[in-house]
Amino acid sequence: MAESSALPLVELAEQFAKLPGIGMKTAQRLSFFVMSMTESEAKQFADAIIKAHSTVHSCKVCQNLTDRSVCPICDDLSRDRSTICVVESPKDVTAFERTKEYKGVYHVLHGLISPIDNITPDKLRIKELLSRISEGNVKEVIMATNPTVEGEATAMYISKLLKPLGVKVTRLAFGLPVGAILEYADEVTLFKALENRNEI
Amino acid sequence: MAESSALPLVELAEQFAKLPGIGMKTAQRLSFFVMSMTESEAKQFADAIIKAHSTVHSCKVCQNLTDRSVCPICDDLSRDRSTICVVESPKDVTAFERTKEYKGVYHVLHGLISPIDNITPDKLRIKELLSRISEGNVKEVIMATNPTVEGEATAMYISKLLKPLGVKVTRLAFGLPVGAILEYADEVTLFKALENRNEI
Repeated sequence: MAESSALPLVELAEQFAKLPGIGMKTAQRLSFFVMSMTESEAKQFADAIIKAHSTVHSCKVCQNLTDRSVCPICDDLSRDRSTICVVESPKDVTAFERTKEYKGVYHVLHGLISPIDNITPDKLRIKELLSRISEGNVKEVIMATNPTVEGEATAMYISKLLKPLGVKVTRLAFGLPVGAILEYADEVTLFKALENRNEI
Repeated sequence: MAESSALPLVELAEQFAKLPGIGMKTAQRLSFFVMSMTESEAKQFADAIIKAHSTVHSCKVCQNLTDRSVCPICDDLSRDRSTICVVESPKDVTAFERTKEYKGVYHVLHGLISPIDNITPDKLRIKELLSRISEGNVKEVIMATNPTVEGEATAMYISKLLKPLGVKVTRLAFGLPVGAILEYADEVTLFKALENRNEI
């Protein structure tokens, strides 16, 4: 993408290259592909970025991403609000919803405690979780973070905060291979891990 | 990205999934990444798509992509206009420019003849090439398509059209491993292939 190419194409490739897992070579391919789109397709793509960014925010209850004030799961009267499944990210909510077996609600932390990356507990949505529990009616909190060092540390940290509040705190069963990424687990493994959860 | 996610996020992921080499899983990751951008970053990204798409078009001489009426290479008086290097796509122009050894000009076909994909010669920018040569002043046309079945067929087809016009037609030397993709060749190999070109 040197002097031979048009500047707007170079700029577009630089934008693509900022995305995770996309290098400069792939970014160039993607920007050439954009050139092959029709005008309305390109506009649709650009609009989707703006629309998602401007209309999607955190649910005021569970902190999952949504375009409403309260997300559809928190708003669903058939869900069991006495059980909260605590996950790292919105992707993990999607993974649990795919099992079609979990009927409780969620709480999305938006990260895991990781001092090496300068992610301290105050950067996660932990106080929002504590305030949900202080309202009463919560019987069980399932710590459903990844079985990695950061995931375990975060689960332990939060469980220590919750125990004094008299709520039952459980952890996903280790049906998951240690070191795995929750998001890629298959439905059955994930359901087994949910079913065999143990009190911490 | 089922019912648990916000619709604008699903729509954004669908847009990403239309890009070549990006599956639904990666598309989801990318759309979550967009959510972590600042508002101005998201706007920059969307604007880059629109700007590239609306301002970049084919150079009226060589058909390479540019945001001007005539691209910088065709406009450069120091380039040798008597030698035209015929390539499949704008990416190949970039590859040749990286060698810093080629001083002629280019002609971008925007594809290769491939009857199985319904790409017939009339869908390529071949008539534009013929009209450039009919203006005179062109001494040599270098067929620099990929050394693949389609690349060879296209080179042969065009060389047959050009021979009656009294122009010298050459082919890149097979320093390139057969079946390789031109765009990924290293500078030295590409320069050798250019240096050892043979008359067809």
